[in-house]
Amino acid sequence: MTCPDLEEAVMLPPARTPEQRKRDVLDRLGRDVDAWVATADPRAGVPHLVPLSYRWDGSSLLVATPSASVTGRNLRASGTARVAVGHSRDVIMIDGAVEALEAADLPDGTADAFAAHTDFEPRALPEHYLYFRVRPSRIQAWREVNELPGRDVMRDGEWLVPD
Amino acid sequence: MTCPDLEEAVMLPPARTPEQRKRDVLDRLGRDVDAWVATADPRAGVPHLVPLSYRWDGSSLLVATPSASVTGRNLRASGTARVAVGHSRDVIMIDGAVEALEAADLPDGTADAFAAHTDFEPRALPEHYLYFRVRPSRIQAWREVNELPGRDVMRDGEWLVPD
Repeated sequence: MTCPDLEEAVMLPPARTPEQRKRDVLDRLGRDVDAWVATADPRAGVPHLVPLSYRWDGSSLLVATPSASVTGRNLRASGTARVAVGHSRDVIMIDGAVEALEAADLPDGTADAFAAHTDFEPRALPEHYLYFRVRPSRIQAWREVNELPGRDVMRDGEWLVPD
Repeated sequence: MTCPDLEEAVMLPPARTPEQRKRDVLDRLGRDVDAWVATADPRAGVPHLVPLSYRWDGSSLLVATPSASVTGRNLRASGTARVAVGHSRDVIMIDGAVEALEAADLPDGTADAFAAHTDFEPRALPEHYLYFRVRPSRIQAWREVNELPGRDVMRDGEWLVPD
C-alpha cells in the first residue's frame, strides 16, 4: 500500500518497498550502537525508558545494564522489552522476549564482540551487570506518516520478506 | 560532583554545571518537536514506546495520539509516562503525570499553538484524537557517562536550580 496523495501533499519521499525496509533495518541494526529500551514493572505497570548500547548478532540484540537498575529489574521480572533504534523520523521498533545472562553464560567471544562494538565493557566495572538478549518477535520500520502502512517487517519472529 | 579522571580517560567534555543543564533543557524543550513516549499497560505491565510530536509551553508537554491507540489507552488508564527528548548522547528524560484532554477542553489557542509548532493537526483527522498533557515531576539531563552524577534537574516538580 502506498499513499501517493499524501506524499505529494507534504513532499515526502515515496514509501520504501518491503524489501528496501528489510535491507535498511538489517544495515542499521548492524551499524548502530544506541537504542532506546522501554520496559515496565509487571506489577505496578510503571513505564521506564533508558538509552543503552547494543550489539546485533544477526538475529538478536544484546544489551547490558546493572542487575539492580530499574531496567535490569524490569527485564528480569517481565521478560519483555520494546526497543527503538534509529531516530524519530527513521524508526526501527522492536518488540521482543528478553533473556537475562551472566557474562559467564554467554557463548565464547560474545562479550568481547559486545565490548568491541559498543566501546563499553561491563565486565570491567565493580557493579554487577547482566547481559540481556532481546529476541525480536515483531519489527516495524517507518520514516514518515506515508510509511505507516506496511511498517511491519517481522511478525511472530518471521521476516515478512524472505531472505 | 564531577569526574575529572573519567573525563580525561575517554576525552569527554567536562560535565555541565546544574545551571547550564537547566538552560540546555529549557532551550531544547522549547525548540524540539519529537519525543519518545514510553507507557505501560497498568494491568499487564507491557511496555510501549512511540515517537510523538510535542509542544512545550514552559511547564508541560502536550502530545496528541488516537484515543484508541496503545499509547492513548495506556495514558488514559495509567496517567503516567516517561518521555525522552533529544538523542541517546544528549538525553532529557521526563517522568510525569498525564492528563487526557479533548480538543474542546484545551485553553484557547493551545491546539493552534500545538499545530503550528509540530506541523501536525489532529483536529483535521477523521480518527478520534486526544491531547495529553504531561506535567513533569522529575527531569534528568545527561550527555555521556560523566554527566550521570547530578543528572536530576527537577525533582518532585521543582527545578533544583531556581529561576
